Amino acid sequence: MRTSQFPLNTVKETPADAEIASHKLMIRAGLIRKIAAGIYTWLPLGLRVLRKVEHITREEMNKAGALEVLMPALQPAELWQETGRWEKYGPELARMQDRHAREFCLGPTHEEIITDLARNELKSYKQLPITYYQIQTKFRDEIRPRFGVMRSREFVMKDAYSFHLDQESLQKTYNVMYQTYTNIFNRFGLKFRAVIADSGAIGGAVSHEFHVLADSGEDAIAFSDASNYAANVEKAEALAPQGERPEAAETLTLVDTPNQHSIEEVSRFFNVGAEQCLKTLIVRGDDNRLVALLLRGDHELNPIKAEKIPGVLSPLQFAGDEEIIATCGCKPGSLGPIELKIPIVADRATALMADFICGANRDGKHYSGVNWARDLPLPATADLRMVVEGDPSPDRQGRITIARGIEVGHIFQLGDKYSAAMNAAIINEAGKNQIMLMGCYGIGISRVVAAAIEQGHDERGIIWPNELAPFQVAICPMNMHKSDRLLETVEKIYRELLDAGIEVLLDDRKVRAGFMFSDMELIGIPHRIVIGDRGLDSGMVEYQGRTEHESREIPFSEIVDFLKSKLA
Amino acid sequence: MRTSQFPLNTVKETPADAEIASHKLMIRAGLIRKIAAGIYTWLPLGLRVLRKVEHITREEMNKAGALEVLMPALQPAELWQETGRWEKYGPELARMQDRHAREFCLGPTHEEIITDLARNELKSYKQLPITYYQIQTKFRDEIRPRFGVMRSREFVMKDAYSFHLDQESLQKTYNVMYQTYTNIFNRFGLKFRAVIADSGAIGGAVSHEFHVLADSGEDAIAFSDASNYAANVEKAEALAPQGERPEAAETLTLVDTPNQHSIEEVSRFFNVGAEQCLKTLIVRGDDNRLVALLLRGDHELNPIKAEKIPGVLSPLQFAGDEEIIATCGCKPGSLGPIELKIPIVADRATALMADFICGANRDGKHYSGVNWARDLPLPATADLRMVVEGDPSPDRQGRITIARGIEVGHIFQLGDKYSAAMNAAIINEAGKNQIMLMGCYGIGISRVVAAAIEQGHDERGIIWPNELAPFQVAICPMNMHKSDRLLETVEKIYRELLDAGIEVLLDDRKVRAGFMFSDMELIGIPHRIVIGDRGLDSGMVEYQGRTEHESREIPFSEIVDFLKSKLA
Repeated sequence: MRTSQFPLNTVKETPADAEIASHKLMIRAGLIRKIAAGIYTWLPLGLRVLRKVEHITREEMNKAGALEVLMPALQPAELWQETGRWEKYGPELARMQDRHAREFCLGPTHEEIITDLARNELKSYKQLPITYYQIQTKFRDEIRPRFGVMRSREFVMKDAYSFHLDQESLQKTYNVMYQTYTNIFNRFGLKFRAVIADSGAIGGAVSHEFHVLADSGEDAIAFSDASNYAANVEKAEALAPQGERPEAAETLTLVDTPNQHSIEEVSRFFNVGAEQCLKTLIVRGDDNRLVALLLRGDHELNPIKAEKIPGVLSPLQFAGDEEIIATCGCKPGSLGPIELKIPIVADRATALMADFICGANRDGKHYSGVNWARDLPLPATADLRMVVEGDPSPDRQGRITIARGIEVGHIFQLGDKYSAAMNAAIINEAGKNQIMLMGCYGIGISRVVAAAIEQGHDERGIIWPNELAPFQVAICPMNMHKSDRLLETVEKIYRELLDAGIEVLLDDRKVRAGFMFSDMELIGIPHRIVIGDRGLDSGMVEYQGRTEHESREIPFSEIVDFLKSKLA
Repeated sequence: MRTSQFPLNTVKETPADAEIASHKLMIRAGLIRKIAAGIYTWLPLGLRVLRKVEHITREEMNKAGALEVLMPALQPAELWQETGRWEKYGPELARMQDRHAREFCLGPTHEEIITDLARNELKSYKQLPITYYQIQTKFRDEIRPRFGVMRSREFVMKDAYSFHLDQESLQKTYNVMYQTYTNIFNRFGLKFRAVIADSGAIGGAVSHEFHVLADSGEDAIAFSDASNYAANVEKAEALAPQGERPEAAETLTLVDTPNQHSIEEVSRFFNVGAEQCLKTLIVRGDDNRLVALLLRGDHELNPIKAEKIPGVLSPLQFAGDEEIIATCGCKPGSLGPIELKIPIVADRATALMADFICGANRDGKHYSGVNWARDLPLPATADLRMVVEGDPSPDRQGRITIARGIEVGHIFQLGDKYSAAMNAAIINEAGKNQIMLMGCYGIGISRVVAAAIEQGHDERGIIWPNELAPFQVAICPMNMHKSDRLLETVEKIYRELLDAGIEVLLDDRKVRAGFMFSDMELIGIPHRIVIGDRGLDSGMVEYQGRTEHESREIPFSEIVDFLKSKLA
């Protein structure tokens, strides 16, 4: 393609409402244009990327044996009433009435439609398992659409649904989908993690989220540096610490600590590390009681873990200062477990602490040299803390790394939630009616485009992986229009690259080379070759990769093979 | 693909609400399933056909240099208010409010969105001409959705919009689109006609409809057997008759014709052809007057032509019996032009009539042997009639054939209708602001699928053209599961066909051959090969085309080349 036939829509201005890099760059590079809040047109350049995401997804879904269908966006209320979601789903469900005042929604998801299809089309266990999927436009009436296509009101999703006779079959397809998603994200050329999102009653994972890693991601993910273990950081288990508690070496001492409240202040006061201080947090429990939670000073409380502790209120509520003073006899900055008259739960890591420092439950006083057993009994312990980098991985393989991620895929074992509500049954081998089990599997197709940019960009623009780039190679000729000889060579190389199946964008605009370069960098073309009069004499083109700092010279005769190897 | 991996959803029952063949067959063959009135899910088999229609359309649009975009379904009311269509568009526009009570519609078309895009992206005449297109889901809140996907509420359209500096450029792109549409419909393998739908002030066609020919079509089309002239039958001109009026041979005679009213009765009574009788129709004119319209007895009035006659009311209104009696002195069955005291307009074909028969304006009496000039003056003449088969083509090339058609495409010169309303201007060569001109070009992608079936089906099912068939070849093995030798041969041929790039459906179900045949005929696979034990001995497969009555034997070694030639 030539820029004369495929005009770029790059702009200098960053839109005022763009908060994140991908949103800014998608506007600046001319991938999308806003029509209304959370509603966009995909311009030719952006659509090329979107179609690549679709294409890879479709190919891998087909390989996995899933059957492509196309369900409607308009969904009748009646089906949603069968599952109770017409009432339960909040204002994010875009609803409308037709001219006869019949109620519809614009589907944000298609469980009801596919379950209705399955109960009509599937009669016998012999037809199972079966997986349907579609790549289709979905709607969600976000209260505050933002981040461009990352959180928009109209977007393209790949959603898939599988139907099964039993859990074993569901688990098998779930595993196939896990592998299919892994293949898809690998083919996208993106760094990603499959994050355990939920565990079933029998212990197996019933839900994984696929996150594209990017510093701007909404979710922190803890993953192993040695296995494919990955979990939302809130869900990652902190394993019980290994090893023995050191022997007590210091004596218990009550110390005046005027105005020393936070762990930072106390550890500086005593000239020890935060890990030598005990943090005491007071939360509400059942029966109007308070509960004390103990953590090592360098650890953070994980509220999701804490609210699962028996006796602790869920969702977690911290006690107010007045309640704490009334119950414990001091302000929060001087709390500690010694002689504390409320239930205490200690994080497992605190059990190995010795000669530690904690509040004395008297304002302006702390104890130092505290030791479990000798000075107070070790309370009940539990996993209460957020994991940190370097923790052992919960699967006992390697150590935890923490990175931020953007959720772009989700696979889920639905069980019989929808099929039971809608009576989607087949005749089983025994000739009896049996409700089917279901799985569902989504990929946010438009979201992948934005997530890829969040992962790959610099101050000059987008950095696409080869597989998603709208064009793989840019040809920037220098003053082509002034030299017939150059024009001929440029056209020849352009033709050779096209013939080699490479997607090339030939910049045939009559503009300065610097202008071409900044456009090609902004739109993120991974490989660029420059051809000028000088190269014509030496028989060389200048090649530079999007992330490389220096260009290098490649002979005309080798450029096709060179680029093919770069794209392989 | 194998039927074990790609299950068919054929059913025996014809849905009660299906009125036309394509609707019935799309349900029976398992291409679509109804979700609500006018809302359908495309099943895997139907989606394969839909995607082929999309694919061919996309390839040809790209070849024509059009740029693919993807605009949103949700369109803000504000843009529609700019063109006045928010108020003018009737209840077919599906409207909704978001959670903040802002008004939106679900786009039935995208003129407002694309014009908004163009006024923002296009600044200079150097960027023109440009054509954008999309293949996207549209919505129309039909009062009575029917005919399956032919008249549904949610459907896939290809819509394109071009922008121009002047009429010459618009006409040029219009011509390119005319040719592109011709290429597209040719590639679909469908019989079609490009029908002149409207003419511009300067005489050129500003609108063509593309009709797929089918007996069940809503529109009658008159087209030449020798050129590409085609027009809606109401719009086709009946040329002035050639030749001289014969000399009068009979004398004017008043004849008693009791109870002879219709042309059929009168011509039978006089034992002449209907073309020897004159038909007199009375319509309302301006100023409360009546006007008489004369036609040859074998011709039909074309109301659209009649209401364009000066002095005739538009829309056309026929006079009632009482008015006729009061004004003309007889009932309608005895009307004639002799001594009639109201304005008379005669169809041009009547001018060549001689010795004809007409009513005498007295009940129960007709004249025979009537001749213009001798017995009454020839009235003013005009083109008043519907064209009939065999008429000379209005372009004077060949003769008219009439067939029914289904409108599936439309190309249109919009001029500045939308661009002026929305102030979509560019800077022209003189440095001044200039409103752009626009063209728009639509294809009903889902409608093409139904229209193809209306054109191609028989009592056994669908007859797809090679290009749109979900699979091109069906392999039906006889008792494959009972013979390893047969299984091996079938797999070998299946593999060879796939390797040759042929889309094959191998029916590996354990069902009777007759069951396979009727399924493959119902779903319309154009080519079928049967392999059985007998053929294994003789080295022959049985081939039968979908429209052929007899099968024939083809040697194993030749089957790939044979099928390739069938598909070429």
